[in-house]
Amino acid sequence: MGQLRAAVVGATGYTGGELCRLLLTHPAVAAIVPAARDTAAEFTRVHPNLTGSGLEFTTVGDVIADAASFDVVFLCTPAGQSMELAPMLLAAGTRVVDLSADFRFPDTRDYERAYGRTHSAPEYQGEAVYGLPEWFRNQLGSARLVAGPGCYVTAALLALEPLLRTDLIDAAAPVHIAAVNGTTGAGNTPRPETQHATAGGTMLAYNLDGHRHAPEIDTYLTAATGRPVAVHLTTAHGSFARGIHLTATVPLASAGTTRGDVLDVWSDAYVREPFVHVIDTAPHGDRTGKDYRRYPTVAAVRGSNRCHLGADVDARSGVAHLVAVIDNLGKGAAGQAVQCMNAMSGINETAGLGAYGC
Amino acid sequence: MGQLRAAVVGATGYTGGELCRLLLTHPAVAAIVPAARDTAAEFTRVHPNLTGSGLEFTTVGDVIADAASFDVVFLCTPAGQSMELAPMLLAAGTRVVDLSADFRFPDTRDYERAYGRTHSAPEYQGEAVYGLPEWFRNQLGSARLVAGPGCYVTAALLALEPLLRTDLIDAAAPVHIAAVNGTTGAGNTPRPETQHATAGGTMLAYNLDGHRHAPEIDTYLTAATGRPVAVHLTTAHGSFARGIHLTATVPLASAGTTRGDVLDVWSDAYVREPFVHVIDTAPHGDRTGKDYRRYPTVAAVRGSNRCHLGADVDARSGVAHLVAVIDNLGKGAAGQAVQCMNAMSGINETAGLGAYGC
Amino acid sequence: MGQLRAAVVGATGYTGGELCRLLLTHPAVAAIVPAARDTAAEFTRVHPNLTGSGLEFTTVGDVIADAASFDVVFLCTPAGQSMELAPMLLAAGTRVVDLSADFRFPDTRDYERAYGRTHSAPEYQGEAVYGLPEWFRNQLGSARLVAGPGCYVTAALLALEPLLRTDLIDAAAPVHIAAVNGTTGAGNTPRPETQHATAGGTMLAYNLDGHRHAPEIDTYLTAATGRPVAVHLTTAHGSFARGIHLTATVPLASAGTTRGDVLDVWSDAYVREPFVHVIDTAPHGDRTGKDYRRYPTVAAVRGSNRCHLGADVDARSGVAHLVAVIDNLGKGAAGQAVQCMNAMSGINETAGLGAYGC
Amino acid sequence: MGQLRAAVVGATGYTGGELCRLLLTHPAVAAIVPAARDTAAEFTRVHPNLTGSGLEFTTVGDVIADAASFDVVFLCTPAGQSMELAPMLLAAGTRVVDLSADFRFPDTRDYERAYGRTHSAPEYQGEAVYGLPEWFRNQLGSARLVAGPGCYVTAALLALEPLLRTDLIDAAAPVHIAAVNGTTGAGNTPRPETQHATAGGTMLAYNLDGHRHAPEIDTYLTAATGRPVAVHLTTAHGSFARGIHLTATVPLASAGTTRGDVLDVWSDAYVREPFVHVIDTAPHGDRTGKDYRRYPTVAAVRGSNRCHLGADVDARSGVAHLVAVIDNLGKGAAGQAVQCMNAMSGINETAGLGAYGC
Repeated sequence: MGQLRAAVVGATGYTGGELCRLLLTHPAVAAIVPAARDTAAEFTRVHPNLTGSGLEFTTVGDVIADAASFDVVFLCTPAGQSMELAPMLLAAGTRVVDLSADFRFPDTRDYERAYGRTHSAPEYQGEAVYGLPEWFRNQLGSARLVAGPGCYVTAALLALEPLLRTDLIDAAAPVHIAAVNGTTGAGNTPRPETQHATAGGTMLAYNLDGHRHAPEIDTYLTAATGRPVAVHLTTAHGSFARGIHLTATVPLASAGTTRGDVLDVWSDAYVREPFVHVIDTAPHGDRTGKDYRRYPTVAAVRGSNRCHLGADVDARSGVAHLVAVIDNLGKGAAGQAVQCMNAMSGINETAGLGAYGC
Repeated sequence: MGQLRAAVVGATGYTGGELCRLLLTHPAVAAIVPAARDTAAEFTRVHPNLTGSGLEFTTVGDVIADAASFDVVFLCTPAGQSMELAPMLLAAGTRVVDLSADFRFPDTRDYERAYGRTHSAPEYQGEAVYGLPEWFRNQLGSARLVAGPGCYVTAALLALEPLLRTDLIDAAAPVHIAAVNGTTGAGNTPRPETQHATAGGTMLAYNLDGHRHAPEIDTYLTAATGRPVAVHLTTAHGSFARGIHLTATVPLASAGTTRGDVLDVWSDAYVREPFVHVIDTAPHGDRTGKDYRRYPTVAAVRGSNRCHLGADVDARSGVAHLVAVIDNLGKGAAGQAVQCMNAMSGINETAGLGAYGC
Repeated sequence: MGQLRAAVVGATGYTGGELCRLLLTHPAVAAIVPAARDTAAEFTRVHPNLTGSGLEFTTVGDVIADAASFDVVFLCTPAGQSMELAPMLLAAGTRVVDLSADFRFPDTRDYERAYGRTHSAPEYQGEAVYGLPEWFRNQLGSARLVAGPGCYVTAALLALEPLLRTDLIDAAAPVHIAAVNGTTGAGNTPRPETQHATAGGTMLAYNLDGHRHAPEIDTYLTAATGRPVAVHLTTAHGSFARGIHLTATVPLASAGTTRGDVLDVWSDAYVREPFVHVIDTAPHGDRTGKDYRRYPTVAAVRGSNRCHLGADVDARSGVAHLVAVIDNLGKGAAGQAVQCMNAMSGINETAGLGAYGC
Repeated sequence: MGQLRAAVVGATGYTGGELCRLLLTHPAVAAIVPAARDTAAEFTRVHPNLTGSGLEFTTVGDVIADAASFDVVFLCTPAGQSMELAPMLLAAGTRVVDLSADFRFPDTRDYERAYGRTHSAPEYQGEAVYGLPEWFRNQLGSARLVAGPGCYVTAALLALEPLLRTDLIDAAAPVHIAAVNGTTGAGNTPRPETQHATAGGTMLAYNLDGHRHAPEIDTYLTAATGRPVAVHLTTAHGSFARGIHLTATVPLASAGTTRGDVLDVWSDAYVREPFVHVIDTAPHGDRTGKDYRRYPTVAAVRGSNRCHLGADVDARSGVAHLVAVIDNLGKGAAGQAVQCMNAMSGINETAGLGAYGC
């Protein structure tokens, strides 16, 4: 049944491995070619979960040389490399889904400010379609180059955009986001502070002097709502390998707004979306006042391409607290990239992505 | 495409939830009916990962009353209940996959000794097919009643049986097994000692006065090899939710036996098995002498129906140490039950079970 | 050397157990009497870490009856019980350190609003000294009744108060706090959602409709700074048993404020405090931009009475992000209670509390 | 009060850090000098939990040059380095507690066989006292050189030796040990497979071709019991940072032996030992048959110098299963080294080591 040929460049990392994992059970994919710089590495040493898949690393050069043979090439390369590779691949006629930041910003100056590097292929920044299918589905069908959103950004945009379009929210006040990522989000380069003995059973705050996903969130929320949106973002790693747990606090415009009002906005916005679910479980009346099942949990979306949204209103403070959870490697990266591939290929957007979290 | 109607009795537990999860993406399943005693429970409160599935609990009574409408009924009920339910279901003409211990022992006395209760349906014990497809595939096609193996037992039998059939092993000596289960293996009844604050970042030994899976392992290894096999088993919960990490130590018959010899036995035995993989990665020459990638890890099979086998020979001690890992909810329970359903239904045994661990 | 006799009422919980643990190695404590409702419970079953201590549960009634014999009684009872017990104990002439919320609010109406219950001993609310030694050391020496601060509150006040007293911060804007507690913070009543299999490797948001610690933070910050302070608080449990990781975002008054400015305020404020430390490690120049050692981590204070403070300035957003970590059972509860006992008893405030995190 | 001056060579590792942590609150220690190769490292970056201690790294050369000024020097150096350093230190008149394997074996050939390297200071191997105070207390008082036992070895010897001296055990059969160590046991050199994202929530078997602690266990059990003891050892890392959970299976000599018999042997052997505790909690009659509180747990000894022992008899198999738990950095390394220092210095063996697990 499968017809598509896909290459995964940068396949030694967590995102590249997850892409291979998803493509292996994708009904429309006929061939997967993982490419890496260090092709001496044994594939199953790097990705022991894919034992039995028969995949082996090839070189990036081989993928470039053979670019025309692929229907899609996924780039899981560090920032700065995709801008070199994508033009070559596009010239060969293949489509590219880039999971780095290189093509996320429509405006080159925004990119250069956030990433501190000169962009070598600015002519493609305008062409790239931002790979959030819930927003840009219509453009993905004809896209040659897709820029996969940042993992935090995906969770933030799905939670915030529908609400910021309403008049429930006080538009003048900044949005405060506290986001916690799994340790796969730190990449797989061994470092002292991400060893299990150091990073297990704790939290590791980072980039409190400014995370690059903040301007990406600003940019897209501002574009979507037509007015400037300011975002304050704190980031940390939690004691789990996969997943993003994002909390956003937004000031309410009027005192009478309820949890139900917030949930209704999302339910309306996502009623036809296969991967965005609203958690609206009723309180269970536990006497302690803690009802953990009232809000989304990271574990529930592990290994899936799903996003769970939940909320409550803190009447005393006049704010709504929003919770969005995704798998940082799933809807936050590889899953969403496959969703884009599906949309670009004219096949069912859910193909190969039906799994629920485990 | 799907045609099968399946009921899951005892669907509030971890195994029942995992069955629903797997059946939801199974290409041949048209309907899933989860049944529970407490049908007032909100399905997505109990299984938040299945938000979006549309499943709701029905009563066990409704499943019984409507038994003839199901192609297969999975019983995830506690020991002692399946022996009451299965006869009713079989009488209605449906097939039953029982995940409890009630029909695992061919000999009623063995069951009654291990479980300390009188069997109320001993006439079905002989009929039940032991649900280990790698051994009993041929009998599953015509089976009405399948008894899913214990989770530890599955890992133990897959690791040990091919080796015990050879003359590599000293048959007279007992086999020592140290097995560590995820905390889902403790069930989802809240208890003080399985709270996260108590059970996280530690290990909880249990049943050191004798685990009921030990006689089940004995029984099937003895039957498979034609000679008595004695098994000593220690069990504990590790600090992970899902998975079994089982180590078995077997005395070697001769001094020259190598790791390669052991791996070869398995490779031959499982060359055509889709879910049993041998980890044979070469040592990487790390100076510290620890090569964690040389052996299977529980994380690599999480969420999958796969079993990874690995081994080494300790020449000084004259033993082989074997490692088998499975997901206790996957190949150890729900995944294997679906594999049995496939075999019973004449469809591809891998249908719905292709996922790799994540 | 020890002379003090201490009782711990409510000693079956995590806080009560931690108090016993600390008092057992306290050089000035001669006797520890743990009291519980269920005295049939085996002490070492409930607190296996205290095996060898020889402690056994007695009844609450026995402590009341013998109240005059104790130098100090710690109340680790649920909200609402301390207000019944404390007057009886004080009448007998013993001193009381209450770790519940009953005496935290000077104004009865604030308590009743936050806790939804009528206060039965309002005459003691004014007398109670708030048990934050860094603020109220001078009053602790003569205190009969001490109200131990909430765990989140301790971390929040230590981080925020010195900064809010300066003109670095825009006083008109609200403070946003995202705080993550260990699962011991959920108490030791078994619940489905705090079982390890559910709560491990994830995060559990809770009380997003308003946590009771928010008004406690408001109250004390407002009192300390002399102007209204609004606090927005989100709370969750992380995948660790002990510890609080609190992030606070405060708007800066002027653009030129640096990380060094923030750290200097704390260094000045806490230069003589034995338990409050400022993390000022320099960036290590890692090319990825993530420097996890630049900020405090929860693991570093585990088992200690210490608070680590860290910060950075996000110049793009014009805010400072603050991080405060404590052990919720240590400086957040039992450790601080012992610190108060020391201050009340005229002995060195650090006695028995020297341990560093492990 | 403190008078002792102590140096810690190899203080960048986990064991060296733990030694500093313990010595900082030791009542008899006046000065701690941590030494490292890389003295450019910021002490609190490496050991953030020791923020506030004021410790800074000095060079190993400085310790050597100033050796005579120290009462004791702890060597936390890799195997092969201690044999170079110890003779220099001893020549200067200081006492040495070596935590490496270099002086653990009385017979040079045993060392060279296990560690695959020539011993450069064999003349000291006979002099070194094996640093297990429960066995060699009398020799520690006059010792100049102490060889701290391996972490697994400490747990194994404390559990097995008293039992092997009785006639409860079938002396001819081998002992099977399955031991699980925390990830600090892997050292703090960053490696791909010990990153949190890889090593969290799983188990990592290693050294199944023979762990060097096995011959060390053999050697000391054989010496203690006067007859050859064969040990089969499997080792793995669990999903926790600190702790050893060791299970040993020993065949019983007669059928009537009970759990009580086993516990009694230990109780008699350790009645006067301050750090070895027998867990004898009665079963609580839980209907599921799992009683996790019946056996020791790793978490209960975290951060302490204590060993908890527990057992049960599996009558069906004719074996006893023993459980021993210690903190691998505590009683398994740094704690025990401090206990040795105390014994060597003529001060109370429990000084500075009173802490209970947390």
